[in-house]
Amino acid sequence: MIDAPDDTDFRPEARNPRGFVDRRARDLAAERRILTAVSAVYERYGFELLDTGVFEYADALGKFLPDAERPNEGVFALQDDDDQWMALRYDLTAPLARFAAQNWETLPKPFRRYAFGPVWRNEKPGPARFRQFTQCDADTVGSNRPEADAEIIAMAAEGLEAVGLSQGRAVIKVSNRKLLDGLLVGVGVTAPAQKLIALRAMDKLDRLGLQGVKELLGVGRLDESGDFTKGANLGTAAIDAILKLLSAPADDRGETLNWLSGIGGSDAFAEGLTELGQIDHALKALGVGSDRARFDPSIVRGLEYYTGVVFEADLQIPTVDDKGKPVRFGSVGGGGRYDDLVARFTGEKVPATGFSFGVSRLAAALEAAGAAGQERLRGPIVVIAFNADDMPHYFAVAAELRAAGIAAEVYLGSSGMKAQMKYADRRLSPAAIMLGGDEIAAGTVTLKDLDLGRELAEGVKDNSAWKSERPGQITVPRSALVASVRAILGH
Amino acid sequence: MIDAPDDTDFRPEARNPRGFVDRRARDLAAERRILTAVSAVYERYGFELLDTGVFEYADALGKFLPDAERPNEGVFALQDDDDQWMALRYDLTAPLARFAAQNWETLPKPFRRYAFGPVWRNEKPGPARFRQFTQCDADTVGSNRPEADAEIIAMAAEGLEAVGLSQGRAVIKVSNRKLLDGLLVGVGVTAPAQKLIALRAMDKLDRLGLQGVKELLGVGRLDESGDFTKGANLGTAAIDAILKLLSAPADDRGETLNWLSGIGGSDAFAEGLTELGQIDHALKALGVGSDRARFDPSIVRGLEYYTGVVFEADLQIPTVDDKGKPVRFGSVGGGGRYDDLVARFTGEKVPATGFSFGVSRLAAALEAAGAAGQERLRGPIVVIAFNADDMPHYFAVAAELRAAGIAAEVYLGSSGMKAQMKYADRRLSPAAIMLGGDEIAAGTVTLKDLDLGRELAEGVKDNSAWKSERPGQITVPRSALVASVRAILGH
Repeated sequence: MIDAPDDTDFRPEARNPRGFVDRRARDLAAERRILTAVSAVYERYGFELLDTGVFEYADALGKFLPDAERPNEGVFALQDDDDQWMALRYDLTAPLARFAAQNWETLPKPFRRYAFGPVWRNEKPGPARFRQFTQCDADTVGSNRPEADAEIIAMAAEGLEAVGLSQGRAVIKVSNRKLLDGLLVGVGVTAPAQKLIALRAMDKLDRLGLQGVKELLGVGRLDESGDFTKGANLGTAAIDAILKLLSAPADDRGETLNWLSGIGGSDAFAEGLTELGQIDHALKALGVGSDRARFDPSIVRGLEYYTGVVFEADLQIPTVDDKGKPVRFGSVGGGGRYDDLVARFTGEKVPATGFSFGVSRLAAALEAAGAAGQERLRGPIVVIAFNADDMPHYFAVAAELRAAGIAAEVYLGSSGMKAQMKYADRRLSPAAIMLGGDEIAAGTVTLKDLDLGRELAEGVKDNSAWKSERPGQITVPRSALVASVRAILGH
Repeated sequence: MIDAPDDTDFRPEARNPRGFVDRRARDLAAERRILTAVSAVYERYGFELLDTGVFEYADALGKFLPDAERPNEGVFALQDDDDQWMALRYDLTAPLARFAAQNWETLPKPFRRYAFGPVWRNEKPGPARFRQFTQCDADTVGSNRPEADAEIIAMAAEGLEAVGLSQGRAVIKVSNRKLLDGLLVGVGVTAPAQKLIALRAMDKLDRLGLQGVKELLGVGRLDESGDFTKGANLGTAAIDAILKLLSAPADDRGETLNWLSGIGGSDAFAEGLTELGQIDHALKALGVGSDRARFDPSIVRGLEYYTGVVFEADLQIPTVDDKGKPVRFGSVGGGGRYDDLVARFTGEKVPATGFSFGVSRLAAALEAAGAAGQERLRGPIVVIAFNADDMPHYFAVAAELRAAGIAAEVYLGSSGMKAQMKYADRRLSPAAIMLGGDEIAAGTVTLKDLDLGRELAEGVKDNSAWKSERPGQITVPRSALVASVRAILGH
């Protein structure tokens, strides 16, 4: 496996594969915190962790016949040595559907599982478009009860709060595919292609407003740049019904249900409405009010996947981009009911519902919303190395700190004092410890408070202390080491 | 990305790709515990988390020219749409070397990083041979000090203890490549091929004993089946020196050093010995005695990778296989000094040293050693669903338990009471909660202690309680719900 160091002059360039990034501790802190918090919520609701390998057979992912010319279309695929095509998972739902189909007989049913980990999309990489990102999902497979959907919605709402988006700062928006399906059937529109165009038009409500959607549902829309988008060519009755659907009040679930009950349409529409009513009922029992989960018939969520209820998690607070410019953040997670995925394998319909947090995206949202963790990323205490002969003293100090649960290290490079202090600063070390010959002889230890130094440098603290020769520097008896470091860590 | 549900009759078989497995909560508990414990040790030593994408360019992994016929030899490789070959990482060291080379100018130096995650090997899968497994590494890049090696060794020892292998149950064995190199140079053996055969022979000491190794160092060895393995053809002086090296006492580092100092050989040998002396010195300062890290010149660790010190973590307790038969477990992790990996990219030698725990393997070792976690895997409290109309009551009970931090769920399938109890049992639920019409009217709730039921069934507890009609079943006021569940959880 491991090749011998190469004797030739070939030197590969050290570079990331396109669309993949390296992440250091500061980049990972938010994601780890999110995964821990959301996993705890899922576990509290009785969901069981499942981990599948990163590969699935391409046919299991819905890529039935890999195109020999473009085997990686959309996914990262390769051919195993028995000629079967495998691909890296593009989400966590497809592996669940495969797992459930494979193990259905022996699973406790309904099967409630959560999962987290990277997923991959083989798309054109761009500045902020990555080809690997992290998801954290919970799904219930084998229950057709609306209460199962309600529970997923409640977990999503609780997950948002667990990561720091308290009530009012984010909300779960819920709709049901059956409403639109029912409306369209009611006005005689049944062609899947037309339905698809209508869904796409509704999905643009945020951006284009009711008038823009109205045009896209009709003959089409001419945008500001002069481009014309062909419309769904629906009749007036259909357009009016859809616009009425989209105009539903959203602040209170009861009001939304009232509005929808005034639309009518068909059996499918009534079924969708009944399901939303049952979900409202269950959400109330779970203590989830309209401030945390509301009904919003404009929610679409993907185009050809969900079969009933759909939901998404949206930020409700203004966000800004890198340059401080306000931006619409969009959703940080979504889900819904998908009753056909397991059937792809077995032919038997298995009802399923679930939710997926885009963890990388949620971390970015927290950052943009200024709601990222308050915790300060801190490096280890750095013991300065003055003299190779005194290494055992330095190591003893570091070991004592670690035994007290404090991260600590001895500087192990070959640079001098000044570079070592700079190293400690770059590691975000809260303090450096100096143990020169004098200290060793006197049984003392000198601590330099680097947090204080950084605060002084940034003008966060009054700089009068700067006027003393060594601000934030104290010498204490060796026996007071741990207590003195704790005092610095505590401020 | 997501294809429409397929209308054809094609049904893919639900199956795992060969060599990949699904793991449920019970399989994952040990691995998660290990990752948490070992990460905490690494952080306490001042190591910083790094996460790289799963792909590296094939040239960065040392596969310079992918063979068009067999691009996946050893790794899982595919060609990106710009024709560059990428491969899934086969360990966590190669991505670190690439990262360090790429970012060397801007990193705090020495750079101390830890990392964990899956790695992939494209090897022939077998019953217990998987193609994806988990590693957890710590490396120091940019320090040539023996103290850097000592620190890695100390962390490895502490990691073993942190996962439950207390002192005496596992040990770190340390050697130095320079000892053998120096010995061979001293007796005039310099051909790399001969050195390789000698290393391979030494690596078999455990299995073949000194006599077997002696034969392999000489003309060769005839095994019991009649197969002849060609030897290194070393001269008597070289063989005697190597055998003396391998016969070193191992219980005490000082004794081993004494023995080795009686061998001599060449400057390289002396250098290797000096380094081990410095490591011994630093280990003492770190409080790591010979019971936790010993010198063992028979340790080889891979054949063409490490350039100096090498170490491995070995179980010291008897282990048994599935059938209770004693087995030699071998190492659960290893590492050493590798000063050439970064130079592959930059041409400049950067000293580096590190250690990798095979996490999946360590979990298996803990299992085999009977040292797996004491924690009992427990499912959620299950609220039995008698009646769809009473769902709000069930949900309210579940929500109350969750608010108290207790995992709980309402049964959401469509089966009757008996199947629901079986479901709760299969989920390893500690208790089922029954809220029938009588309980709701009376303001009470009935709890069934399922842990007790399982213990009675297994004969762990006296079965006199069985004679009561409903063992472990109590009815309490609704207000006593949380306290009563806690009482069951606490026993």
